[in-house]
Amino acid sequence: MTYADRWLLPDGIEEILPDEARPIELLRRKLLELYRSWGYEMVIPPLLEYTDSLLIGLGRDVDLLTFKMTDQLSGRTLGIRADITPQTARMDAHSYKREGANRLCYAGHVVHTRPKNPLATRTPIQAGLELYGDASTNADGEVVSLLLESLRAAGLPKLHIDLGHVGIYRSLMAKVDVDEAQKDIFFAMLQRKAVAEMNTWVAENITDKTIAKVLLALPALAGGREILSEARTLFAAVASDAVNAVDELAAVADIVAARYPEAELYFDLGELRGYHYLTGIVFAAFAPGYGNPIASGGRYDHIGEVFGRRRPATGFAVDITALSKLGLLSAAPSSLIGYSDEGSDAQWQAVAELRARGERVVAAGSRTEMQALGCDQVLVKEGDAYTVASL
Amino acid sequence: MTYADRWLLPDGIEEILPDEARPIELLRRKLLELYRSWGYEMVIPPLLEYTDSLLIGLGRDVDLLTFKMTDQLSGRTLGIRADITPQTARMDAHSYKREGANRLCYAGHVVHTRPKNPLATRTPIQAGLELYGDASTNADGEVVSLLLESLRAAGLPKLHIDLGHVGIYRSLMAKVDVDEAQKDIFFAMLQRKAVAEMNTWVAENITDKTIAKVLLALPALAGGREILSEARTLFAAVASDAVNAVDELAAVADIVAARYPEAELYFDLGELRGYHYLTGIVFAAFAPGYGNPIASGGRYDHIGEVFGRRRPATGFAVDITALSKLGLLSAAPSSLIGYSDEGSDAQWQAVAELRARGERVVAAGSRTEMQALGCDQVLVKEGDAYTVASL
Repeated sequence: MTYADRWLLPDGIEEILPDEARPIELLRRKLLELYRSWGYEMVIPPLLEYTDSLLIGLGRDVDLLTFKMTDQLSGRTLGIRADITPQTARMDAHSYKREGANRLCYAGHVVHTRPKNPLATRTPIQAGLELYGDASTNADGEVVSLLLESLRAAGLPKLHIDLGHVGIYRSLMAKVDVDEAQKDIFFAMLQRKAVAEMNTWVAENITDKTIAKVLLALPALAGGREILSEARTLFAAVASDAVNAVDELAAVADIVAARYPEAELYFDLGELRGYHYLTGIVFAAFAPGYGNPIASGGRYDHIGEVFGRRRPATGFAVDITALSKLGLLSAAPSSLIGYSDEGSDAQWQAVAELRARGERVVAAGSRTEMQALGCDQVLVKEGDAYTVASL
Repeated sequence: MTYADRWLLPDGIEEILPDEARPIELLRRKLLELYRSWGYEMVIPPLLEYTDSLLIGLGRDVDLLTFKMTDQLSGRTLGIRADITPQTARMDAHSYKREGANRLCYAGHVVHTRPKNPLATRTPIQAGLELYGDASTNADGEVVSLLLESLRAAGLPKLHIDLGHVGIYRSLMAKVDVDEAQKDIFFAMLQRKAVAEMNTWVAENITDKTIAKVLLALPALAGGREILSEARTLFAAVASDAVNAVDELAAVADIVAARYPEAELYFDLGELRGYHYLTGIVFAAFAPGYGNPIASGGRYDHIGEVFGRRRPATGFAVDITALSKLGLLSAAPSSLIGYSDEGSDAQWQAVAELRARGERVVAAGSRTEMQALGCDQVLVKEGDAYTVASL
């Protein structure tokens, strides 16, 4: 490697310079304080741990996203976390066990072997929260509320979220008498909303006309609140569990709509994101110009099972890097005061007092140096006192 | 792996639960704001990057501490950062270039393949800063001052730092006519302050009596300010560069002593920590019951060279995890207010206002649940208004 390219970073891995780092840091603090004000306690899970604990029931996607290496102390395989949720589930099951509800929040890096989309970073900074031990729609309502609060805290002018429920697809497919391989094929078609292919598949595989009609209706069951009653009518003839799932979705939507009347709720009953580990409602927020969800979450009641403690669980994660890049929260422009160190006690005291008041004060040899540093003000001596003047 | 041990974490890798996480988070913010008030700009370097850029001139120790894996996008070797300093040096050399002084600060995890000592974590959280482009003792004085300010911010009752200068040993050894292998042997003896072995080695290898005397004096050249003049007299006959190094050390000590008269400065002229990459003063702070330095740094003027830009550089890193574990900054006990959601607008507004004021308010079904959550207060309705009462 030559001097010329030794400073190059790997694709999808970037360094964050001051203009972006400060807003990210401020957003991070704002979100953590927000979650704290709702009773969530901060935890700091480790960056890496045994893959046996890290890759639990999150499916093959997370496995492939996880960097692995050998632990020199144990010879076992370590993974760098690609997702923080399983780590908080482990805490809830063992080291930070509570009988009732357990509210945990976090902020930190996750690392992916490959970017989730061509423009995504491989080292996003996430903030997130999980509510364990509460299976009610109130719990889901709280978590969705906090997602909206997070978007608001980040300065998003419009609150908009997509809501679905993986229980709908799960209970409908339980009524379908085809093998798993065929179900996987249909799953992939629905995920792409490939309606023409779905038509052919249903014609070939489903004999029951009522079920066929419902399956083919799924991609179009997307829109405002009105689609929920339409769905109830459709599902009633096929699977009562699917109706229950719609009722849950409606209950969560009621809570959220009452609290945030300005929020746009978009329902998508064919939504399958996170299907392999989610068990109930699923939700996401998108932002213009960013392909992945800027925040996403849902209910995942099984996750603690591998740690020996199955608990209801619902939560979400926000991509702080992406959210901050929208540039909605500009860090307030802040003054920089230069001073030329004369080594006197009085000057030192004046500088220390300014810093203690939150001012930024930087040592520089000359006014030219101050200008190079970006100072807009200068500490000057007037008689025995020091004051701040324009540079 | 069974349910019983799937939750176990690897040795030296720990999760941080709420009681410890909150003080760590507060200390992190406090230190970043402190550095900001001195004109340092925050950067967020990536957690991993090519080892070609990460392992630059920091010696074999850092190489062995660095976890490595293959980048699936390029096939090249990636390392997880074991040290953040080379990353900021790369920024100073390329992406965040300035002509004059460049002040950068950061906070984040580093990861080590093995703990630096038996009790150390393998995933410490560090805060640190680097001052590039200023070769003066004023710059070293600023950085040492900020180390003391960091200890003070963390609530350390006693400010104490060890100071040395690797230029002393370097210039003395330049006068010694033995081969590198023999020098390495002497280096290891001095590092252990193994005086008896040093006596034998010097008797066998050094013929010049003045140099022999100086080399054997090094382990004892440790203590208060008075040893500096003693050292000057000793070194004067052997190496003027060593005298210059002592003068630099004295100049930095003068700056620091004037600003922090209460700080204890301990000099150790045989100190060799970081010898292979440091070039000037070297300093560290220790805390009772913690084997590694709680903070350490020094001058390292060569580091940018591999990126094609050799710049003066001085800085340090603080181990936030270890510092916070001393428990000197207890997070102020904070009230937790429970409320039983009745779904009314008025109650929701009351809760939202409390949260906006910074109170922690948590939803709970009953008073028993509130107690389980650790609430000490409860939101109660009095007439049309909501107030907070003891639980």
